[in-house]
Amino acid sequence: MLIAKVIGTTVSTIKDEKIHGRKLLICRQTDEKGEFIGKPYVAVDTVDAGIGDLVLTAHGSSARQTNITDNRPVDAVIMAMIDTLEVDGKVTFQKG
Amino acid sequence: MLIAKVIGTTVSTIKDEKIHGRKLLICRQTDEKGEFIGKPYVAVDTVDAGIGDLVLTAHGSSARQTNITDNRPVDAVIMAMIDTLEVDGKVTFQKG
Amino acid sequence: MLIAKVIGTTVSTIKDEKIHGRKLLICRQTDEKGEFIGKPYVAVDTVDAGIGDLVLTAHGSSARQTNITDNRPVDAVIMAMIDTLEVDGKVTFQKG
Amino acid sequence: MLIAKVIGTTVSTIKDEKIHGRKLLICRQTDEKGEFIGKPYVAVDTVDAGIGDLVLTAHGSSARQTNITDNRPVDAVIMAMIDTLEVDGKVTFQKG
Amino acid sequence: MLIAKVIGTTVSTIKDEKIHGRKLLICRQTDEKGEFIGKPYVAVDTVDAGIGDLVLTAHGSSARQTNITDNRPVDAVIMAMIDTLEVDGKVTFQKG
Repeated sequence: MLIAKVIGTTVSTIKDEKIHGRKLLICRQTDEKGEFIGKPYVAVDTVDAGIGDLVLTAHGSSARQTNITDNRPVDAVIMAMIDTLEVDGKVTFQKG
Repeated sequence: MLIAKVIGTTVSTIKDEKIHGRKLLICRQTDEKGEFIGKPYVAVDTVDAGIGDLVLTAHGSSARQTNITDNRPVDAVIMAMIDTLEVDGKVTFQKG
Repeated sequence: MLIAKVIGTTVSTIKDEKIHGRKLLICRQTDEKGEFIGKPYVAVDTVDAGIGDLVLTAHGSSARQTNITDNRPVDAVIMAMIDTLEVDGKVTFQKG
Repeated sequence: MLIAKVIGTTVSTIKDEKIHGRKLLICRQTDEKGEFIGKPYVAVDTVDAGIGDLVLTAHGSSARQTNITDNRPVDAVIMAMIDTLEVDGKVTFQKG
Repeated sequence: MLIAKVIGTTVSTIKDEKIHGRKLLICRQTDEKGEFIGKPYVAVDTVDAGIGDLVLTAHGSSARQTNITDNRPVDAVIMAMIDTLEVDGKVTFQKG
């Protein structure tokens, strides 16, 4: 999984019928401190995440292993909200 | 999913029989403003996208989860047209 | 799918029994003009491609969705020969 | 598989129900000497790994082929602890 | 598939039960001449490869399509030994 920050939202009227009603959020990969290190991508939300939240995203076929994404044409899913990250015994991120 | 802009078309006479009749479009990844950040790739269209449209593309096995791409040898699909992208409360892209 | 040029051939005597008789070609990713932009990789040919041909390759599990590659340990397949690529209304590649 | 070092831990209260009870560790890819060469990512532990351990991680759908990860929305798994790495006849890493 | 050279071996006592008895070799991607172009990764051997051999590796779910890797948590497999590589009509690699 990637550590990522939710940075934005998407609106799509015309889309595959299987993704109607799914919330698609713009994410960017971060490091263990929550600092951006990657390009933006879009993931389906399953944990009611909001802008600024640090989350974990699963990719590829693994993104379809939730009740919300099963058999749908999506390749990234937000499957956990991050409360705390700790590296070498020190807290590097703590949800505000 | 990747945010991408449709930039072109492909014509192929000789191809796997399972992709006959599928429209294969050339896309390039963009950021949340629609600015190019990636190399060109080819995706199957399922939403009647046109040149210049900003779209979402799903990759890998997820690209085969639509009626148009099911069981076919394709690894990228355009599964949504983007109307609006919003980052940190500001509209970064609006369909013209 | 990636746009790629076929640049070479491979010979392997010792290999998994499921790929005996499959033609494995060396490809390199190109842009929409046919200019190289990537590293070499090897794909199974399903369209009788030759050296110098511009082709499309599908990757991952999608590479196993042809009659020639089904259930075999291969992760890239040439599934179309490119006749023409057109970007923003201009032909960027035309088969010679 | 990637060679990686376990560098940290994650805590998530809100997450997909299928990953409750799974230990999610922060890893970073290393080379054959255990030197970091990649960005951090998060993998499910199946071998009781600890901070500082050198491990192997499997990715994508392969990450779901263990009893602990089967059918769950996770795309990386720690499936082996590394005792020794040897390159060109020399030991490049030995577990302390 | 990637062209790769086998550079080393791994020893793991604690590992997922499904990979017991599998030989895990350290590989590095090469170009068509056998020159290194990538980072090290670990693949399951199915062709009795040795240190210094040039091989093909298949990745992702395709790595599980051999009798030796079926349903196991591995994402890379050595599925062919390379005898000869030829680019543009010239031999670029010949097994010694």
